[in-house]
Amino acid sequence: MAYVSEKRQEQQCEDVDLSHHISDYARGFRVSPLKGLQKYIGREDMISFSGGMPHPAVFPFADISANILVPDSFSIAPTLTSPPRGALSWLWRLFGYDPSQERTSPIRVSKVPASGDAGLNLATALQYGPATGLAETQRFTHAFSARVFRPARSDFATLVHTGNTDAWGRCARALLNSGDTVLAEEWTYPSALATATPIRIDVLPVPIDGIGMRADKLRALLAGWDDKKGRRPHVMYTVPVGQNPSGATMDLKRKREIYDICVEFDVIIVEDDPYYFLQMDEYVSKDVRAGRAASEGEGDNEAFLGSLAPSYLSIDTQGRVIRLDTFSKTIAPGMRLGWFTCSPLFAERFERVGETSTQSPCGLGQALAMQLLRTWTPDGFVRWLRGLRAQYTARRDFFVDALAGTFELEERVATQGIWEGARVYTAYARPHRGYRMMSEKKSRVPLFEFVPPSAGMFVWIKLNLAASPRHRTDDEEDTLEMQFWTHLADAGVLTAPGWFFSAHIAHDGAEHAEPDFDVEGHLRLSFSLATTDEMERGVKLFEKTLREFFQI
Amino acid sequence: MAYVSEKRQEQQCEDVDLSHHISDYARGFRVSPLKGLQKYIGREDMISFSGGMPHPAVFPFADISANILVPDSFSIAPTLTSPPRGALSWLWRLFGYDPSQERTSPIRVSKVPASGDAGLNLATALQYGPATGLAETQRFTHAFSARVFRPARSDFATLVHTGNTDAWGRCARALLNSGDTVLAEEWTYPSALATATPIRIDVLPVPIDGIGMRADKLRALLAGWDDKKGRRPHVMYTVPVGQNPSGATMDLKRKREIYDICVEFDVIIVEDDPYYFLQMDEYVSKDVRAGRAASEGEGDNEAFLGSLAPSYLSIDTQGRVIRLDTFSKTIAPGMRLGWFTCSPLFAERFERVGETSTQSPCGLGQALAMQLLRTWTPDGFVRWLRGLRAQYTARRDFFVDALAGTFELEERVATQGIWEGARVYTAYARPHRGYRMMSEKKSRVPLFEFVPPSAGMFVWIKLNLAASPRHRTDDEEDTLEMQFWTHLADAGVLTAPGWFFSAHIAHDGAEHAEPDFDVEGHLRLSFSLATTDEMERGVKLFEKTLREFFQI
Repeated sequence: MAYVSEKRQEQQCEDVDLSHHISDYARGFRVSPLKGLQKYIGREDMISFSGGMPHPAVFPFADISANILVPDSFSIAPTLTSPPRGALSWLWRLFGYDPSQERTSPIRVSKVPASGDAGLNLATALQYGPATGLAETQRFTHAFSARVFRPARSDFATLVHTGNTDAWGRCARALLNSGDTVLAEEWTYPSALATATPIRIDVLPVPIDGIGMRADKLRALLAGWDDKKGRRPHVMYTVPVGQNPSGATMDLKRKREIYDICVEFDVIIVEDDPYYFLQMDEYVSKDVRAGRAASEGEGDNEAFLGSLAPSYLSIDTQGRVIRLDTFSKTIAPGMRLGWFTCSPLFAERFERVGETSTQSPCGLGQALAMQLLRTWTPDGFVRWLRGLRAQYTARRDFFVDALAGTFELEERVATQGIWEGARVYTAYARPHRGYRMMSEKKSRVPLFEFVPPSAGMFVWIKLNLAASPRHRTDDEEDTLEMQFWTHLADAGVLTAPGWFFSAHIAHDGAEHAEPDFDVEGHLRLSFSLATTDEMERGVKLFEKTLREFFQI
Repeated sequence: MAYVSEKRQEQQCEDVDLSHHISDYARGFRVSPLKGLQKYIGREDMISFSGGMPHPAVFPFADISANILVPDSFSIAPTLTSPPRGALSWLWRLFGYDPSQERTSPIRVSKVPASGDAGLNLATALQYGPATGLAETQRFTHAFSARVFRPARSDFATLVHTGNTDAWGRCARALLNSGDTVLAEEWTYPSALATATPIRIDVLPVPIDGIGMRADKLRALLAGWDDKKGRRPHVMYTVPVGQNPSGATMDLKRKREIYDICVEFDVIIVEDDPYYFLQMDEYVSKDVRAGRAASEGEGDNEAFLGSLAPSYLSIDTQGRVIRLDTFSKTIAPGMRLGWFTCSPLFAERFERVGETSTQSPCGLGQALAMQLLRTWTPDGFVRWLRGLRAQYTARRDFFVDALAGTFELEERVATQGIWEGARVYTAYARPHRGYRMMSEKKSRVPLFEFVPPSAGMFVWIKLNLAASPRHRTDDEEDTLEMQFWTHLADAGVLTAPGWFFSAHIAHDGAEHAEPDFDVEGHLRLSFSLATTDEMERGVKLFEKTLREFFQI
């Protein structure tokens, strides 16, 4: 934390006019027609015949309540214990968690306003509300962003949205015109691509290495931009923590390099950070973990926050970073609730775009989420996040352990490609018992590679399809990647095929005559939902399918 | 109801290819990349490593519950009783409603799935879900649309959205290209205009009369379309019930005329119907009502549904109607929940557009709304709607009574203009006591006109600004309408100024040198939220401001 504080003092903020980044579409909104009403709003003596608001007495909810887990429900150490059995085991088979020990506390939101309720009542929450969200949501998000992300500029705004997909959609429409090009990691979140393509935004893949987007490649793409291809990219979409799908996390040094390039070439950075609080220590093998388990989980809330990779906001002296946060991974996806942290300039336009699409997020969801957070207190929420982080760490470790137990893994530091600089594991089939001598040579075919993720929910697998015998004989219509994906699904294991995530495919469009095995042959495996039993069985089935596919 | 049934049997549905209405944008979505997964999804024996779903055990809500009003909380007769007094009177001062008599029943949604819960559990509702909504939401909306709107075609689909503004936004983006023109009532919902303008959709105003959009004018606009102005309008946005702002409601005969024109000119009808269940009997004066109060509120649920103006869906033999429904007025706006009823062709594209914007509506909101409706039963919900209708009728009657008590009203049937065919009230100032003789002539200046609405929440007022002395002397920058609006606001009464709603102003853009008092000089007054006391005081202040403004 001391480190970040020091930097904050050093930073000189500049006022730069960034309004030329706003799209023709977003310029098309007049300032809210309600603007003229501002001086009258909130005045106790006004009689309002202006809105189309139902009377709260006809809202059929007299109150809503919930039993919420206590903030320290989950250990801050990534403990592995045997899962409970029984009827609910499918749901509760979580590491170190015993549902019979579940501790909850009640919360309640009444329809009737009361002093000290922070506006969390149903008469307000179930009414039409501004696209900026409930007052308490505004207050919480602003205070949380200030504390955790420590924006370099004090004049930042926060604004609710209904999840980072909605948020990126608003960014795309508010910042990009048809024919523009957006920068993104070469492997990226499929919805980000699906948002861009229909509005005729091209996605320019920027190569990545073991910590994410490469600064040198970014510079080369921008410096070498040919204006014949249209406007030079002026917006970047990036997932810098637990990059989806690669799992890489960027350090502050690289962020500074990228930020400086974005200043030089006048690029807006959209920092999509859903996995920010799922940052993990580096994976080490089971044996090593056993030796140091006692020291895990130390430190307090501030130490935890200080251990997280700093946000681009912390070095954004110009207001060119738009950060997207979501409660999807920290409370639940079905909340459909998150927030922008960005300059007031952009926040105002996102509000206008929101007014004609999602409007305000669901009031019931906002009221329950904010009552939960008030009950927990901000420190309770940070404690909850530490428990979550430990849960995901335990899941990652269990999943990678399962891979290590099924395959022979060889470790090396990659010197090129998407994992450059990272510790890569190459997986080989274990020799069949009794066939060791016979099949030794064949079994040493490297089957796939991966890097245990540093955040998030996914292991990104690069299959060695070039070594597959099908590579030479195949004449099926599907790519080899989809053939493997289908074999694995037929064996009973669903995964996400690599092409979903490829900005190269989105960019080039056309099929290649010859497969490019730098692009083709990836799978994303999630460890967030499966039971331990499913992980073990799934990894075995993966191995069996690989053997069949590679004919070893 | 017999009438509608008969028609359904007569109607011959035709299969017409309407896919050319889909915009370039909506064509840009590839079929969901998940499509290939369909055969594996839901199979009990599959192990899923594919999604990015958190484990339900880390959702911090163990359960949610609510106390809900019983379906017959409100009388089906529009009763007026004295409002209760006290600390909560601001909230509860509703007609005929005594909060101490509030009857509620509890509902609960548990995290853990159980058989017979219809999927209404938090493990499902708080998870990522399809843009089509929870299974129970899909089931409810389809069954409800089938029962109440009786679509002519049996192959209709329903699809959730986050409110009719989101829904119209998706329609506009899925059906219209930049430069296209959309047909709308000459006075219309401001958000519909605000959605269209930034995507460079022109809005072509269609004149209205006392029951809504005029068929003859619609035909003339389409038949006389000059192709030099671009593609002939192929989408209509219409609010046929409780038209916002005019309050007009269209009968089946007019709907048939308009539908036939839309068939002839190949126009898609977007039927935005938020006020459908707030349809009222015609306003009659207090005295007349007193005489027949005993006969009010008769009939059963089926009679109520049969009394409502039929939806365009009921005559849509070709699948060119897209109906938008919302729970905003029947449950609460803060639910941010509604649904499309339309052909599968359009529903599929709306789903794709939804996947990159709102995704699924909030799961907490859906779960609570659906648990409420399951507890109420469908008939209980219809009973609830009848109580709502009576509440809004009582409010409209009280508000119009207040106007009748403050102004001298003269009634006539309009023979031209936006109220042609309707019973229009012209309001004159009552003579000051003691000044009757002196000011008689001046006081007979007609101040404004209105028609008591047949549905919805609003009285649409046409000020007689041409008679205002300011008309001739004024050199202020504001329009006369906004000058009056500001005077009224300064006096303590907020209203919605007419220009918000003007498709003419959105269409023409430019200011006119001379004011056009067919367009300028309207106000929309809402009676949905104010207390009886506020209505009475507000109407008095309106009268005082008119006297000052008209110098009488």
